[in-house]
Amino acid sequence: MKPIVEIAKTAGIDENDLELYGKFKAKLSNDLWEKVKDRQDGKLILVTAMNPNPAGAGKTLTTIGLSQALNLLGKKTIAALREPSLGPCMGIKGGATGSGKAQILPADEINLHFTGDIHAITAAHNLLAAMIDNHIFQGNPRGLNPKKIVWKRAMDMNDRALRNIVIGLGDSNGMTREDGFMITTASEIMAILCLSESLADLRDRLAHIIIGYDFDDQPVRAEEVNAVEAMVVLLKEAIKPNLVQTIEGTPVIIHGGPFANIAHGCSSVIATKTALKLADYVVTEAGFGADLGAEKFFDIKCRKAGLTPAAAVVVITVRSLKYNAGVKVADLAAENLDALEKGFANVKRHLENLEKFGVPAVVAINHFATDTQAEVEKVIALCQEAGAEAALSNVWAEGGAGGTELAEKVSRAAERPSQFRLLYEEELTVKEKIETIVKEVYRGSGVVFSPGALKTIQKVEEMGMSHLPVCMAKTPYSFTDRPDILGAPTDFTIQVSEIRVSAGAGFIVALTGSLVTMPGLPKKPAAELLYVDEDGVINGLS
Amino acid sequence: MKPIVEIAKTAGIDENDLELYGKFKAKLSNDLWEKVKDRQDGKLILVTAMNPNPAGAGKTLTTIGLSQALNLLGKKTIAALREPSLGPCMGIKGGATGSGKAQILPADEINLHFTGDIHAITAAHNLLAAMIDNHIFQGNPRGLNPKKIVWKRAMDMNDRALRNIVIGLGDSNGMTREDGFMITTASEIMAILCLSESLADLRDRLAHIIIGYDFDDQPVRAEEVNAVEAMVVLLKEAIKPNLVQTIEGTPVIIHGGPFANIAHGCSSVIATKTALKLADYVVTEAGFGADLGAEKFFDIKCRKAGLTPAAAVVVITVRSLKYNAGVKVADLAAENLDALEKGFANVKRHLENLEKFGVPAVVAINHFATDTQAEVEKVIALCQEAGAEAALSNVWAEGGAGGTELAEKVSRAAERPSQFRLLYEEELTVKEKIETIVKEVYRGSGVVFSPGALKTIQKVEEMGMSHLPVCMAKTPYSFTDRPDILGAPTDFTIQVSEIRVSAGAGFIVALTGSLVTMPGLPKKPAAELLYVDEDGVINGLS
Repeated sequence: MKPIVEIAKTAGIDENDLELYGKFKAKLSNDLWEKVKDRQDGKLILVTAMNPNPAGAGKTLTTIGLSQALNLLGKKTIAALREPSLGPCMGIKGGATGSGKAQILPADEINLHFTGDIHAITAAHNLLAAMIDNHIFQGNPRGLNPKKIVWKRAMDMNDRALRNIVIGLGDSNGMTREDGFMITTASEIMAILCLSESLADLRDRLAHIIIGYDFDDQPVRAEEVNAVEAMVVLLKEAIKPNLVQTIEGTPVIIHGGPFANIAHGCSSVIATKTALKLADYVVTEAGFGADLGAEKFFDIKCRKAGLTPAAAVVVITVRSLKYNAGVKVADLAAENLDALEKGFANVKRHLENLEKFGVPAVVAINHFATDTQAEVEKVIALCQEAGAEAALSNVWAEGGAGGTELAEKVSRAAERPSQFRLLYEEELTVKEKIETIVKEVYRGSGVVFSPGALKTIQKVEEMGMSHLPVCMAKTPYSFTDRPDILGAPTDFTIQVSEIRVSAGAGFIVALTGSLVTMPGLPKKPAAELLYVDEDGVINGLS
Repeated sequence: MKPIVEIAKTAGIDENDLELYGKFKAKLSNDLWEKVKDRQDGKLILVTAMNPNPAGAGKTLTTIGLSQALNLLGKKTIAALREPSLGPCMGIKGGATGSGKAQILPADEINLHFTGDIHAITAAHNLLAAMIDNHIFQGNPRGLNPKKIVWKRAMDMNDRALRNIVIGLGDSNGMTREDGFMITTASEIMAILCLSESLADLRDRLAHIIIGYDFDDQPVRAEEVNAVEAMVVLLKEAIKPNLVQTIEGTPVIIHGGPFANIAHGCSSVIATKTALKLADYVVTEAGFGADLGAEKFFDIKCRKAGLTPAAAVVVITVRSLKYNAGVKVADLAAENLDALEKGFANVKRHLENLEKFGVPAVVAINHFATDTQAEVEKVIALCQEAGAEAALSNVWAEGGAGGTELAEKVSRAAERPSQFRLLYEEELTVKEKIETIVKEVYRGSGVVFSPGALKTIQKVEEMGMSHLPVCMAKTPYSFTDRPDILGAPTDFTIQVSEIRVSAGAGFIVALTGSLVTMPGLPKKPAAELLYVDEDGVINGLS
């Protein structure tokens, strides 16, 4: 690792605009934006993916490797990534900082406490919760209906026992009521932090959070329990983007990491905009496959922040193609050319979808050791047939050098004039927006709304919030709302079971099926593998 | 503020032994201890107090001011203080970093997230909790009795609604059982961090935490749910002491802040020992009055860490004297010489107690604007009558310059050869230890144990842990267990309602009366006063 001061220099950031957290991590000062804001933007590259198999597709890996490769080609590039949260690191082995020769450093620190952003969000979230219950306890002047409080509590831990709880038991402990914890990344405050353009914008969004409803069923906002300014105080440092480096010294801005289902699943607007002022290319990623991640990146983040993506990378793996052809997980390593052809239907649909957004796409075949030569050639041929540029990416084994072909193709695609367009207009009703996404992106025949969802949609209209974009919460494994229907299905409907309002973040969440916002630990938690060795180094994390 | 690198230099700390958190905060590297450990120790000064009035006595203020004053006298001094937690800052206005011209900087950051130590403790605490419930959920191979889990959850927030809760409701969410949250400073992990001498010691203590009992009523330790190494990973940075500065540039090591009732209430052993190697004088404080704070500082911290205090400062205020004479809070500002004489009985008893420990004491009269000249003279005369050195301390208004007389007297007291002795031997039974503290320090006639307390004491004996020192949890306002019995009462008994075992921290907690380990927010929480102004500065905190 190089000192972060040196990495900053390569990105044109002066030492005075850094707030150091040790030698290898820094926050970017508020002043930096003022200094660079009038510069021309670099080109924004979105890394997305086909529907993943349960082991993932290698999107973060490819994002890191591509940024390294672009730098190798002499193009000044910054990667803009999501911030991992520590809870999940205790569940399934592996952090979210890439691996092999395409990773971000210092990986352990980034995966655990990092610069404290997520701890700060947890604190702000729970302060609001405590202020709500204290408001009721102290006489409830606002008339909050304790049965209709929608603001839960948050913790950055995988702890299923806290999903559904009863609080306020016993004498002098407040109103007894049902409640629950979500993991902090699912907090609306995380989504807000990631969509805010400034501290003032953050304050405004926090004020608008709907915490519950009063006895007249009217929404009650965070500002009505006087929690907003104190939340801003707690988030004052967390809103500043973090600078780290890849294993090859590429600058990486890591900032924010909202859930990709209940929220929009991409890193912060502040980080993206800052990176665009500092580099010729900014490589960023969105959660899950393109049906969810790219659609929300475009229709929520780009819409709100006025961003124009220049190109997209669709990460695919031979494994994921086979998985989408119905091959069992245990058999994914075996050569199977027929399955590749069948599974490719899934990729083709994602490519068609990206065309609808006017974003040129390049396919990155993230290479696995089990891929055979014949399989790789087959996939490249399939891409060519579909009219798509494709490149084998071997960044795990080779770092940036394993991604230069991809980098060249991405760079050429990004040079074309942008045709970027959003999928729907704000003026559509909530139902129309959902129907548009389902028909145009998922290719379903229609949407079935539960009575509860319809009731909330009516409420959204009454509250004058129909203009907000929609954030779909759907399984990532399928274009449908059922994880077992793979490939490129048609003739299906999407069931919207529930609608939630993220009035502060500024979107309407449409839930298809059940949504768990607090993960659990598996039988053998990854926490059991972690240890600090005699040299003080953390082992077992990635 | 001077750059922390410069402050470090004045303490003889090389820049390479600092891990910077911005320009004004740093952690001390593990290597530093190796470099300085063979040096001679400086003199350890304990700042304690008479029984406080509800508004506090100014112990932290005096600790800071005295360290500044000693430096003014040319004595190389470091203050070693407790780390504030952010939860309480949202409740009652005011941080824990001193005020006026005797304060620690950057106050806002220290009072809120600081370097993330308390967030790390919260994470480690809740990881253990999640591992316990997951252990049961995944089949409960160890046979943990869900009705006898004593490890609760933790949060750094004042949130009374979480005191008593039911967790694990609903399908697939684990065992439904009663639980509760404590504020993080009450976590045994906080006490452990403060008593550990190294990362290895920390690991060992974490392993010994009793998380609950099995179906045969045998204790189950944290190591039996495989959570220990991961907790060490989470606490790896938190165990390093933090360096900041006073408003006059005196180096301050702030590290750890355990509750003064359920735990021993003083900053970390690592911080104290490091400071003693770096300075001629180390000024530190213990929670509450001398009956609780000093007794635990000596009998728990000094016993365990092999520390020898050179002198003690007893902070008193004219207000506290009057309060101890029974004057109502509303009348504390009015001159009342008779009340001073009556209230002084409280101070006298604390001075006698410190003599029992063989520690020379100096009385610091922490000056308030409402104190009259006659009152101050009266108090000084009372101290002289009692054979005690006393000095007026005006460090709030004048900084170190307002504490030079105190500093001179303290320095002279500390030059005398140490007569330090512990109050009781480890070999005594738990009951005998408690009785010794009650009779020798509180001056009660005896102890009444509840049947539950007696049962746990028997359990402690069976588990072979009778040798541990006792940590008394008692009201700070009185020598008795009733906050309304002030002054220097005699002929009372202490009721021990419950015994808890902190096997990792290494003490037996004796609870007198009820103990709330999770505070609530008041009617007008301090959180409502906080805001970030247009210059990005936090207002309303102190």
